[in-house]
Amino acid sequence: MYKENLIESHRRIKQYIHNTPVLTSQQLNKIAGVELFFKCENFQKMGAFKMRGATNAIMQLSEEQKQKGVVTHSSGNFAQALSLAAQSLGVKAYIVMPSTAPQVKKNAVLGYGGILIECEPTLAARNKTAQEVSQKEGATFVHPSNDMNVIIGQGTAAKELLEEQPDLDYIFTPVGGGGLIGGTALAALYFGENCKVIGGEPFECDDAYRSMISGKIESNTTTNTIADGLKTELGDKNFPIIKEHVEKIIRVTEEEIASAMQLIWERMKIVIEASSAVAFAALLKEKESFKGLKVGIVLSGGNVDLKKLPF
Amino acid sequence: MYKENLIESHRRIKQYIHNTPVLTSQQLNKIAGVELFFKCENFQKMGAFKMRGATNAIMQLSEEQKQKGVVTHSSGNFAQALSLAAQSLGVKAYIVMPSTAPQVKKNAVLGYGGILIECEPTLAARNKTAQEVSQKEGATFVHPSNDMNVIIGQGTAAKELLEEQPDLDYIFTPVGGGGLIGGTALAALYFGENCKVIGGEPFECDDAYRSMISGKIESNTTTNTIADGLKTELGDKNFPIIKEHVEKIIRVTEEEIASAMQLIWERMKIVIEASSAVAFAALLKEKESFKGLKVGIVLSGGNVDLKKLPF
Repeated sequence: MYKENLIESHRRIKQYIHNTPVLTSQQLNKIAGVELFFKCENFQKMGAFKMRGATNAIMQLSEEQKQKGVVTHSSGNFAQALSLAAQSLGVKAYIVMPSTAPQVKKNAVLGYGGILIECEPTLAARNKTAQEVSQKEGATFVHPSNDMNVIIGQGTAAKELLEEQPDLDYIFTPVGGGGLIGGTALAALYFGENCKVIGGEPFECDDAYRSMISGKIESNTTTNTIADGLKTELGDKNFPIIKEHVEKIIRVTEEEIASAMQLIWERMKIVIEASSAVAFAALLKEKESFKGLKVGIVLSGGNVDLKKLPF
Repeated sequence: MYKENLIESHRRIKQYIHNTPVLTSQQLNKIAGVELFFKCENFQKMGAFKMRGATNAIMQLSEEQKQKGVVTHSSGNFAQALSLAAQSLGVKAYIVMPSTAPQVKKNAVLGYGGILIECEPTLAARNKTAQEVSQKEGATFVHPSNDMNVIIGQGTAAKELLEEQPDLDYIFTPVGGGGLIGGTALAALYFGENCKVIGGEPFECDDAYRSMISGKIESNTTTNTIADGLKTELGDKNFPIIKEHVEKIIRVTEEEIASAMQLIWERMKIVIEASSAVAFAALLKEKESFKGLKVGIVLSGGNVDLKKLPF
């Protein structure tokens, strides 16, 4: 039911995003024992796949909605993505961010033309503030991951990957709020040739793993991980898709994440963030099960504080 | 006189090297005020352009010479390049390295199948040991930068760059032993449309800059630079080419190198070594002179110790 939507969304956002390269590495193939295809969303505009979903969500608004702008709460890549996508499309973006967020993240939003609104550093305050802005300005709220237009937009990365490598056996993505893996699962379903999707998740915030077992959306009690893009939880829009179309979630330790990240930096000479390394770490963890297969890995982003590397 | 040689060498080595991608960055274009095209030799096999010259040098040997192998002295990328090129071509490579060289570099040579021969950490001992190996084994000595086959091989990077962007106004490369910039100058001469070549060099080892002024090969008294691939000096094979065909050498400080390196990591999401950043740092230093022009930058390599970053 989402096939046409994916095709149309991709056509719509194409001129506002990069069709990022798919890189290979003979050295990593040897280490993993599989044939790897890395979809490099670290080379995406603003440095992460989130640019896709943000652009798609804004482009689906009516002209009236566009005039009043969009609002979201995020202290991560989605805040920057919505700001830049809105700027490219001539739309205002209100970004609600906890006052405690690092100045560098606030500056990034401002640099992309976002309108920064600070709030108390609690989830309740973030929701409330975003709601207030939405009411006052008439701005449309766009959730970073639990929004069908966002999910479909994120799925265009896997669509491009499958256009280049149609016979992938698997695609691995990291799992945070569920937008990327949800969209990837749909793209694999419609554009793959029996391509299965697996998620990588830190042990330290394994809500998706537990949700798959219990059959309902579970919460995190701890989020003590270097994969700071993955601390969020699944939502009612993406969880049904994940439950139905994702084969499984593989959990990895912090050491495994850091080590996979270092391997990619050293062997592939590219900068990826810790969250991006989780998918590759998950593959390495169970590599014996994938011997000789063709595996796509979505490297979700490359926004890293070079002063705080985990290796 | 080297045009055919460049064409033939390129044809010869093609299947043993990567035609590396040419990346662009709107953000860096804005910062530099020019249109930039980065030739990403950090993505080359073994992580540096040296793979090109090493492969070309070995392929030009007679069958008899190939059976006896090759020998070089290097503790840097050329040691690994000659080892891997020799391995790919079924030839033995003797690598003379100072006993004080980091174990990680020794392991890299061994990993690529090179035969490691340690010597005292002096230039005299290196030369003498290489000569002894050459005599004892009958192995052909291949100089890392002052060898016409090596110079021509390195020039194939700029040839590829110009095949993709034929109307570049300038190509910038770092200057170490002179192999890369010498080959680049020849490629620009034969395959560019009035494309000029400029070198970037650290103030801390500005032998090429001084050699261009004095008209003879100058030595370094200090080599206190983070650009550790550039501590070597020009040779009698490459200096005449550089003198005739390179427009000038621009010197940069250590801070400028580190800052250019960080800019490329952060904005382009790729890993380059400090030596690679020197060419971009040189452009930034005099960017006012290149406003609006099309400038190619050879990013020479990406072999970095992630534990020792200069930022």
